[in-house]
Amino acid sequence: MPEPTAPDIADLAARLVAGERRALARAITLVESARPDHRAQAVALLAALPPRQALRIGLSGTPGVGKSSFIEAFGLMLTGQGLRVAVLAVDPSSARSGGSILGDKTRMERLSRDPLAFIRPSPSQAELGGVGRRTREVVRLAEAAGFDVVLIETVGVGQSETLVAEMSDLFVLLLAPAGGDELQGVKRGIMEIADLILVNKADGELKATATRTVADYAGALRLLRKRPQDPEGFPKALPVSALEGDGLARAWEEMQALADWRRQTSHFARHRAEQAESWFLSEVRAGLLARLRCEPAAGRLAALGAEVAAGRADPVAAAAEMLAGLK
Amino acid sequence: MPEPTAPDIADLAARLVAGERRALARAITLVESARPDHRAQAVALLAALPPRQALRIGLSGTPGVGKSSFIEAFGLMLTGQGLRVAVLAVDPSSARSGGSILGDKTRMERLSRDPLAFIRPSPSQAELGGVGRRTREVVRLAEAAGFDVVLIETVGVGQSETLVAEMSDLFVLLLAPAGGDELQGVKRGIMEIADLILVNKADGELKATATRTVADYAGALRLLRKRPQDPEGFPKALPVSALEGDGLARAWEEMQALADWRRQTSHFARHRAEQAESWFLSEVRAGLLARLRCEPAAGRLAALGAEVAAGRADPVAAAAEMLAGLK
Repeated sequence: MPEPTAPDIADLAARLVAGERRALARAITLVESARPDHRAQAVALLAALPPRQALRIGLSGTPGVGKSSFIEAFGLMLTGQGLRVAVLAVDPSSARSGGSILGDKTRMERLSRDPLAFIRPSPSQAELGGVGRRTREVVRLAEAAGFDVVLIETVGVGQSETLVAEMSDLFVLLLAPAGGDELQGVKRGIMEIADLILVNKADGELKATATRTVADYAGALRLLRKRPQDPEGFPKALPVSALEGDGLARAWEEMQALADWRRQTSHFARHRAEQAESWFLSEVRAGLLARLRCEPAAGRLAALGAEVAAGRADPVAAAAEMLAGLK
Repeated sequence: MPEPTAPDIADLAARLVAGERRALARAITLVESARPDHRAQAVALLAALPPRQALRIGLSGTPGVGKSSFIEAFGLMLTGQGLRVAVLAVDPSSARSGGSILGDKTRMERLSRDPLAFIRPSPSQAELGGVGRRTREVVRLAEAAGFDVVLIETVGVGQSETLVAEMSDLFVLLLAPAGGDELQGVKRGIMEIADLILVNKADGELKATATRTVADYAGALRLLRKRPQDPEGFPKALPVSALEGDGLARAWEEMQALADWRRQTSHFARHRAEQAESWFLSEVRAGLLARLRCEPAAGRLAALGAEVAAGRADPVAAAAEMLAGLK
């Protein structure tokens, strides 16, 4: 990537806001870069963007539930209504392996060719925290680029669902039809953050099982305490068929109804404000800790750490010495 | 507590090293205090202590497995051999409630009256990280005070087992006799950190079940990959009866055999060195982040956070501004 200079950043921001796809792709490459000069440019770019809002939908589904087929069918339905849809992935396993085997664009072939859609695979960074940090910035870029809906998908490994929920307006859990016993297979805590549970594959042989699964989850959801951010009847469980398209329109209606209710009751704005503030705080903390990896702090940290490991210094006293030097 | 001055700290250290119980209790109160002046004195005290070593045994057992009875019986056996035993607790639930209902000393009445034993309940601090931080320092105090064995017990809530394992030389998991199906009830990851699994209540009606449970766990342990820090045959599963005293001597022999092997193969020293270095690093990180809670940083952080929440500033740009001001 050639070096963007300061006027370049203003130009990049303008082209991104005008909806130019190549500008968005370039901006994403910039925020995902680990180079310090790129980081400074990314910060400048983010500060230069206008505050536009898309509906941010977090989506979790383990492999095998038909997540790609669902996103493709759901995304095409939205673009069919003239809506611009961005699909971003938070996938810690891809972060480790350096990308999914098939690739996100292959998984959603028709959607990836749709001029109203934009698909971005998970950045291949070392750790989940880093992936989340960059994804949050890509969401901002997609919003500034004028997308109406930003779908943030995750396979649900480790803490990735919480991470995705923290950057979404609403959170959708996609499940496969299953027997009653398998209900417990849903990770604890996920039921609590889901706004909508969609049971996919409600078609063909699995239709009856899917209907029963929906009823099971609806029952389980009724046992949870009502959250202040939910209107009557939410969280909800619904059947969908990515294969036949059934239930997709209904699911979208429910998402819109929920988002509208939250907008009117100010839960939406409050949630966004809290997310932005918590994002700011975690950026400050991460930035502060990153200084320990820069010279001369890194050298002193290593030297004192070696003294401690050798038993020549007390860990707490050495930490106090290190911190005194950082004043 | 009256204000200890600098000469007081040297005096406190000397009395602690001489094995004076009141000095140890006072030192613990000092390291557990949240007051900044007490913290400075605690750091000075820790730095002044000689590098003595006890055998640090981490012990996890959920309520109902007879952990208190085991610690009492095991501790009395050790003091019966002339060994000095300190019992410390890491209990995040007690940290929330401000102390266990019965109190640790009531739970282990005979051991608490033993002049060779010292029992300290979990500090009632807000969060597990804080509890762990202070417990690590109390372990150091107990070692400097000349204890031969430091037992660090936890109920195993959340990440507390990992925390205890990180400050122990060996980790013991205490379990109750159970049917084959309940084997899976052991939290994933705990089997991997256990050096010794003790199945308690191997007496009376439960003796046969306990024997079968030991065999089940021994089988499960054989399925785990051998770790470099283990001699042949470890991790091991053994039956014990805190009630009748059976198996306690054998368990102690196995612990000593394991510790001796690790000392001879330098795993013991390497593990201690790694623990000390990681303790040092986490102290530095925590200390650095704590500065955000001090003025003027705290005020600027709150002001910028409010700007971000109100949508008047970009989270990343505001974080960059905050960090620039912290230089």
